[in-house]
Amino acid sequence: MDGWNELDRRTRELSDLRGAFELLSWDQETQLPPKGVAARGRQRAALEGVLHERLVDPRLFELLLRFQGERGLSPERAAWVRVLHRQAERARRTPDRLVRELALATSEAVEAWRLARAEGRFAPFEAPLARVLELRREQADALGHGGTRYDALLDVYEPGATLASIGPIFARLVPELQRLAGAIAETRPEPLRPFVGRRFDLARQWDLSLTLLRAIGFDLQAGRLDRSTHPFTMRSHATDVRVTNRFREDDPLPGIFGALHEGGHGLYEQGFAPSIHGTPLAEACSFGLHESQSRLWENLVGRSLPFWRAFFPELRRLFPESLQGLDVERFWRAVNEVRPTHVRVEADEVTYNLHIALRLRIEQALISGELPLAELPSAWNEASREILGLVPPDDSLGVLQDIHWAWGDLGYFPTYTIGNLYSVILARAAERELPNLWRDVERGELSPLRDWLRRKIHARGRLEEAEATVRAAAGEGLSEGPFVDYLWRKYGELYGVRR
Amino acid sequence: MDGWNELDRRTRELSDLRGAFELLSWDQETQLPPKGVAARGRQRAALEGVLHERLVDPRLFELLLRFQGERGLSPERAAWVRVLHRQAERARRTPDRLVRELALATSEAVEAWRLARAEGRFAPFEAPLARVLELRREQADALGHGGTRYDALLDVYEPGATLASIGPIFARLVPELQRLAGAIAETRPEPLRPFVGRRFDLARQWDLSLTLLRAIGFDLQAGRLDRSTHPFTMRSHATDVRVTNRFREDDPLPGIFGALHEGGHGLYEQGFAPSIHGTPLAEACSFGLHESQSRLWENLVGRSLPFWRAFFPELRRLFPESLQGLDVERFWRAVNEVRPTHVRVEADEVTYNLHIALRLRIEQALISGELPLAELPSAWNEASREILGLVPPDDSLGVLQDIHWAWGDLGYFPTYTIGNLYSVILARAAERELPNLWRDVERGELSPLRDWLRRKIHARGRLEEAEATVRAAAGEGLSEGPFVDYLWRKYGELYGVRR
Repeated sequence: MDGWNELDRRTRELSDLRGAFELLSWDQETQLPPKGVAARGRQRAALEGVLHERLVDPRLFELLLRFQGERGLSPERAAWVRVLHRQAERARRTPDRLVRELALATSEAVEAWRLARAEGRFAPFEAPLARVLELRREQADALGHGGTRYDALLDVYEPGATLASIGPIFARLVPELQRLAGAIAETRPEPLRPFVGRRFDLARQWDLSLTLLRAIGFDLQAGRLDRSTHPFTMRSHATDVRVTNRFREDDPLPGIFGALHEGGHGLYEQGFAPSIHGTPLAEACSFGLHESQSRLWENLVGRSLPFWRAFFPELRRLFPESLQGLDVERFWRAVNEVRPTHVRVEADEVTYNLHIALRLRIEQALISGELPLAELPSAWNEASREILGLVPPDDSLGVLQDIHWAWGDLGYFPTYTIGNLYSVILARAAERELPNLWRDVERGELSPLRDWLRRKIHARGRLEEAEATVRAAAGEGLSEGPFVDYLWRKYGELYGVRR
Repeated sequence: MDGWNELDRRTRELSDLRGAFELLSWDQETQLPPKGVAARGRQRAALEGVLHERLVDPRLFELLLRFQGERGLSPERAAWVRVLHRQAERARRTPDRLVRELALATSEAVEAWRLARAEGRFAPFEAPLARVLELRREQADALGHGGTRYDALLDVYEPGATLASIGPIFARLVPELQRLAGAIAETRPEPLRPFVGRRFDLARQWDLSLTLLRAIGFDLQAGRLDRSTHPFTMRSHATDVRVTNRFREDDPLPGIFGALHEGGHGLYEQGFAPSIHGTPLAEACSFGLHESQSRLWENLVGRSLPFWRAFFPELRRLFPESLQGLDVERFWRAVNEVRPTHVRVEADEVTYNLHIALRLRIEQALISGELPLAELPSAWNEASREILGLVPPDDSLGVLQDIHWAWGDLGYFPTYTIGNLYSVILARAAERELPNLWRDVERGELSPLRDWLRRKIHARGRLEEAEATVRAAAGEGLSEGPFVDYLWRKYGELYGVRR
């Protein structure tokens, strides 16, 4: 096909240069000596500049337009053209000036956010955040949208999602979660984690992370585990996927669930079919679908009783003294403790999505402009009281707790909830197709589930968008129903409450 | 100055992209999971392609030509233009096809070399090496030279050096080294390393490397230490310089001298004046001058008695049992043991440059074509007998011992000797200007020497070429005299022999 070889060559160069860019970012979070930060910033900007230049090259666009009209393309090639055209189109619509101004504004906002959080005062963050909002609004207009500016931003992280599609889901989800959390609170549960505060050797926690990664099928010949302040997953290529984790000496749970969460992300990145490596299809469909993979392993598997029947003996072997007095069932209850908190990242399965609903409400109002920035802290506190039933004691535990807005990531938070909803939808489908699923898990045999996910989700990459991919795998699209049923069933049993 | 801003911008982009490229290479040797090797190869090739494209851009060349004729430039800017013009000119003279063919031929030659060495037979390496030689000859012609093709290759590593300039130096050096080595052999010395074979804890050797790096002034806030199969130094930027080391559990010496050697390279890379960061001047003048910095710390300082008066107590503290029966003087004698060996990398200060003379003779004949490849092993053995007084028992210890030719690096070996000669010339100059130098070293105070080198060599970067830089620092250029005097004085005393 005339021109396809050139498109292929250009596409693979983009993929290789992106892989290099990802490595620079990973290195910055895990290896970079402190004095090298400024130079690394310039190196990343230079490489980003090359990527942008390649992506907006008129010749690439010409090729993409030619093949968009081509009827004889295979579904893979048609998807390739669609995804790359989307990327090129977005790059072309975002002026260089805006890219540079956003980079500057967000790096200033991150500095200001750190300061503001350390001081527990919102004021130093206000002006820098205002600048970020202004530029993101401008970007939303440049990208274009059918309804509201917020849709344009949401679409960056979750292609195809709109306020009109997710708004009603949140509207039904929130009261269900509030009802369940309320029912649990009425039982006045005892604290379930007597082991927190004891000592858990860090080297042994490291080994446990490796054990868990291997158990879920993460390939350590095509990936690594490292330490970082905040856990994350990086793909330089499907054959080089790096997860990170962090550990607390007085609590093994962050290390355990960090490994399962990032390992779940890592499996997605390692799982693209080799035939799509180097193409635009070797990429997750969306942030939401990505999160579904981490949450499925972290929560659906990692907080299940069968999983701990398989792995609690190993845990006891590693930390015999610190886990004294605990049996597998009590440990399972401990990792499923429901306890409302101010802090999103510490939230349990029941209340987690209430934190997201709070952020969605606020960031929508920020982008539309209906919430003046000066009123943001009080609006946050009011929404927190209403949605979570908690008023933060200070802004550090309130409006300043997340870094996302300083990074410019508005429209990102909803993908966490989308991921949680998808994770249950997919787990239910896997249960239907793998009748021995939980018996296998109980034996520590996680490969049937891993293989199912690989086949249904990972290997396909971005051949279709997220919801179509889930629909093909599970026979249904995004809704809150399965998630709510799952929570009531699981936590109803754990806490003896009924719907 | 019209156009300078554009030249500045283009230059800094090149520097940033090169820094990214270096990081990819470092990562490959220290972090990369095994299955990621192929993808990393493509990523490096893609980035190299971008660098080449930028370097041969006609607009860059136009700017360089304009400023080459400009009389009002500061010395820094004039050097900037000179160095970048040299790089651009060489890139333009090397056709893309040749670059690709060399990449292919050397990667095949490396494979073949590994196989040949493992089997101890030269034959599998012959044809791939012939291909590399053919392409390197073609490259030499493309680059151009005033005399022989070998000069063009030497100039890649040691700008300005020619066979006419270094040939006579080797011709005088070799008989002096043979005479000294012969005189030492006649004393029939006893083996001096009773501790080799005892156990040296690897974690403690790691700590010792860090101690030594800190002692010589390597900044671990602007650099790192990691493990790799073969030690090397990488600069992504002067604020991010990474050295690697390797350790043997039965011998502490490779770890000690590896740290000092790579640390010496690292000091050069960290030492460029901040005002030249991001410019073509933030680079070593030559491979020879680079090697002088590693050898100065490894040999002139690291194998001196004052140095061990300062550091032997620390060594005893770390390895009390394995160093039993040794005092500082006996340890100092041990690290200066002269013992002819077949293996270059294990050679002592006296015989090391004989290994280089052997390689220089052979590779010159290979490039000129006067030595047919089928005769290479026997020619090597004959030259080894003549120069080193040893005939290798097999090709693995003979012609196959180094990877350099498989990499295509012909013309590189002489820079090791140039580095050794410069190291003594510079150390002598430092002694003259720092009267307390050795008293400071004896107290473990290495910063006066480090500061002198920084001022005289490191900070200047590539403002002038290597020999001019040494001449400005030491008042003399390249010659073998000071090195020969140094060896006779040091080893004459150690072995009780006289010139």
